[in-house]
Amino acid sequence: METFSVRAVGVARTPCRSPGEAPIQGHLRPEVRGEVEVFEEFEAALADVDGFSHLTLLYYFHRSGEERLTAKPYLDDVERGVFATRAPWRPNHLGITTVRLLERRGNVLVVSGVDMLDGTPVLDIKPYVPAFDAGGEDIKIGWLTGKI
Amino acid sequence: METFSVRAVGVARTPCRSPGEAPIQGHLRPEVRGEVEVFEEFEAALADVDGFSHLTLLYYFHRSGEERLTAKPYLDDVERGVFATRAPWRPNHLGITTVRLLERRGNVLVVSGVDMLDGTPVLDIKPYVPAFDAGGEDIKIGWLTGKI
Repeated sequence: METFSVRAVGVARTPCRSPGEAPIQGHLRPEVRGEVEVFEEFEAALADVDGFSHLTLLYYFHRSGEERLTAKPYLDDVERGVFATRAPWRPNHLGITTVRLLERRGNVLVVSGVDMLDGTPVLDIKPYVPAFDAGGEDIKIGWLTGKI
Repeated sequence: METFSVRAVGVARTPCRSPGEAPIQGHLRPEVRGEVEVFEEFEAALADVDGFSHLTLLYYFHRSGEERLTAKPYLDDVERGVFATRAPWRPNHLGITTVRLLERRGNVLVVSGVDMLDGTPVLDIKPYVPAFDAGGEDIKIGWLTGKI
């Protein structure tokens, strides 16, 4: 099976030291602040990010341990297919969260709405653009209906 | 530097055979249909996805070649930091696109709004949930303002 190697371009600094301290989703706790420290060798890639109010972070669930195909999500008591959840115990351990960019200080992004654990390796940073990302009309949210 | 190994959980089948045939973003060409063929060993993870109207695909830009820190995006003629763009020539070559789920047929997801090249390795599938993903208010889109 073909594999691809990825590495951290930075690290998340957050107040969440353990899974129990992390919000279920960043949007549900927009006041939680953190920082993304982008490693210096990638700092040039941050040019122009400060024009965006929101960034989507891609990161590696470095503490999630085993990969599962089904899991009981935090917001439910029924086992679900992990591709229908945002649970961390997923193949490839990849996470995404859209955060608000409060300030850029050199190679450090000050953000709010974080749900990552402190020390999470950040793999990519993308501008959040509603015309690309916002889903559109007639959105259905499956088993999450009525739970959020 | 710590690296992480990821592998495809499936492959995208799309009408886009070359970069010139791919939409700049899937949302800009919602009529473009494609399929995600999830490998059989991951099929159990698809349980419950058919309740969601939209899915966010994470994938590997397998044809993007070199990594750059700055690049001229398709929608601009100025060099920008790649973390302020969705350009494929980025560290780790990771892409995300939110697509509409039209139908699930076993291990195949029929979707619309694809912008991936045919054969793109899919690394993860997540339910799109506006309350988690939709950014919120006061959204600013930096250099893209007025271009989309």
